[in-house]
Amino acid sequence: MKGLWLENNQLQLRTDIPIPEPPPGEALVRVLCAGICNTDLELKRGYYPYTGILGHEFVGVVEQGPEHLVNLRVVGEINAACGHCRFCRSGQPTHCENRTVLGIVNRNGAFADYLCLPNENLHPVPDNVPTEVATFTEPLAAALEIQQQVALGSLNQVLVVGDGKLGQLVAQTLALTGCDLLVVGRHRDKLTNLEARGIKVGLADAVVDKAFDISVECTGNAEGFAIAQRALRPRGTLVLKSTYAGKLSLDASSLVVDEITLIGSRCGPFPAALELLAQERVDVKPLIHAHYPLTQGLAAFERAQTKGVLKVLVDVS
Amino acid sequence: MKGLWLENNQLQLRTDIPIPEPPPGEALVRVLCAGICNTDLELKRGYYPYTGILGHEFVGVVEQGPEHLVNLRVVGEINAACGHCRFCRSGQPTHCENRTVLGIVNRNGAFADYLCLPNENLHPVPDNVPTEVATFTEPLAAALEIQQQVALGSLNQVLVVGDGKLGQLVAQTLALTGCDLLVVGRHRDKLTNLEARGIKVGLADAVVDKAFDISVECTGNAEGFAIAQRALRPRGTLVLKSTYAGKLSLDASSLVVDEITLIGSRCGPFPAALELLAQERVDVKPLIHAHYPLTQGLAAFERAQTKGVLKVLVDVS
Repeated sequence: MKGLWLENNQLQLRTDIPIPEPPPGEALVRVLCAGICNTDLELKRGYYPYTGILGHEFVGVVEQGPEHLVNLRVVGEINAACGHCRFCRSGQPTHCENRTVLGIVNRNGAFADYLCLPNENLHPVPDNVPTEVATFTEPLAAALEIQQQVALGSLNQVLVVGDGKLGQLVAQTLALTGCDLLVVGRHRDKLTNLEARGIKVGLADAVVDKAFDISVECTGNAEGFAIAQRALRPRGTLVLKSTYAGKLSLDASSLVVDEITLIGSRCGPFPAALELLAQERVDVKPLIHAHYPLTQGLAAFERAQTKGVLKVLVDVS
Repeated sequence: MKGLWLENNQLQLRTDIPIPEPPPGEALVRVLCAGICNTDLELKRGYYPYTGILGHEFVGVVEQGPEHLVNLRVVGEINAACGHCRFCRSGQPTHCENRTVLGIVNRNGAFADYLCLPNENLHPVPDNVPTEVATFTEPLAAALEIQQQVALGSLNQVLVVGDGKLGQLVAQTLALTGCDLLVVGRHRDKLTNLEARGIKVGLADAVVDKAFDISVECTGNAEGFAIAQRALRPRGTLVLKSTYAGKLSLDASSLVVDEITLIGSRCGPFPAALELLAQERVDVKPLIHAHYPLTQGLAAFERAQTKGVLKVLVDVS
C-alpha cells in the first residue's frame, strides 16, 4: 500500500508498504481522509524520534473488525493502551505507560491506505457529519480536554493565546461555555474566522495584565507563554495546550508569588467532540485551507508548513 | 533605633533609624526575636530590588495599637493590603495589587527594635508557645498553604524535594495529613531530624520515576525541580514552594504530555500555624541552629549563609 513514511527526518511517499494485519482486538481501517497537525510537522523536523507512517487525525472505514463496526465510517482515539498497567487499571488509558500512539509513538499512522487500531478506540461518525469535518474530531477532543480539567462558566474571563489551528478550535469550544472570552493572535485574517462567530479577538497588545482568570497557551513558543502568564490574575490558571520544541524558560518565581496554577492538557473525549460536530455547534470548515491526494502527500506537507496556512487535508480514498 | 538596613546589596547595622510612627490602623510592635529566611539571603544577594530594614519572620510585643493587643506577644502576617483593590474586594488580601510586604516590598522589616503592621495582621501568640518557636509561624503558615491548595489524604503518595528549613516544615505539616510521604535531600544530618519523627527520608536517587501523586519543590533550583517533575505520575501535581533566582528552564512538553498540574504556593494561614505550635504537633526546635543578638546581626547573616545551617534567630530585646 501507499504511505507517507518518516525516517531520519526524511518524509517519503512509499508504495511498497504491506497492508497491515490487525492483531487480535484490533480493526483494519481503510483511510478516507487525514489531517496534517503541527505535531506531524514537528516529528518531521525531528523534535521527537519516530520512524514509520505519520498521521493521527483521520476518518476511515472499518474493513475488518467487530461486526458492529464493519463498513462504518469511524474516527479513532490515538493512544493504544496495554490494559494492564497501573494507569490503565486506574482508568487513565491515555496515560498508559506502555502505550503506542497512532503515527507518533511505535504505531504506523493515518497517511496511508490502511491503519490498525484497537476496536475500543474506534467511534462511528454520525451520518450528517461530512468526512472532511470529522477529521477534526481528534484535535477538537483535545480542545475539549480543557473543560474536563478546569471549571469554566459565564463568570470567568478567559484568554486564548494563538490563532492557529489549535487556538481556533480551543476558542470555539470555550465560547460554548458562555465565558467572557478574548482570543489574541498575530494574523488578522485568522482572527476574522472567530470574529465572524461573535468571539472577541485582538492582537497581543490587547491583553491587559493580570486581568484573566484562565489563559490557554496555544502557540508552543516562549512569547506566547509569557503573554498567557502576564495576563493572569493572582491564583489564575494557565492551560498549556501546545508542546514546545526544547526547554521552555520561564519566570517561575512569579508563578509562586502569584500562586498561579499551570495545567498541561493533551488528548480529550471523542464522543463529546463528535456530538459537537453532529450538532454543528463548532464550524471547522473555515479552517480547511487545502486538500491533496495521498500521492501528493509531500506537497501537502510543504503547504502545511507555509506561513498562514491552517488545516491541510490528505484525501486517501 | 537599631536595624539591619539593606541598600545597594550592602547590609549594615544602623543605629540612627527613627522609631516608626504607626499610621492610623497600624500598631507599633517592639520586636523580641526574628528569623533569617532564604528570602532575606536572596534580597541581600540582590535577586530582588529592596532598600530598607530586612526581616519578616518575627515575634514582638504591641506597644501602641488596639486595646485588645497592647502588651501582648504577637506574630504578624507580612502582606499589608490596601483593602479596596479588586483582589482585596474578592477576599484575597495576600494578593493585593497595592500591597507592601514586611521587609520585602516597600515596608521596613523585623530586624530592628520596632516595626509597624496593620492591626488586622497581628495574631496573639498562645502563652505556651515560646518566643523562639513562635518565630516559625510565618514559614509554617506558608507550609500549610499547600493543604489549602491541594486535597491531600492517606491515599496520596507525596514527595518533598529539599531538606532545608522550608522542606522540613513542609514535610512535618504534610505528615500530619496521613499521606504516604517521602522526603529527599542532600544532607544526612538534616534528614535525620525528620526520620526521628517517623518520616521516610532518602537521597535523590531514592525517587522512583512517575510514582508520586504530589511532589513539593522546596529547593529553589532547577535540579530540585527536575526531580519533583520526574517523580510525578501522569496527572500528578507539582507544588512550587520556593522562588527561583532568574529564569527556570524546564521540559514543558512533558508537562503537557503527562497533563501535570503545577501550583505556585506562597503565604498561608497564621491561625492554623499558631494552633499547630500550641498543640506541639510540629517541632521546630531542631531547626534552630543559632541565636545572635541584633548588634551581631551581620554575623547572624554570615552564619545563615553557611552550608548546612538551618534557622538562625536574631534576638532583638
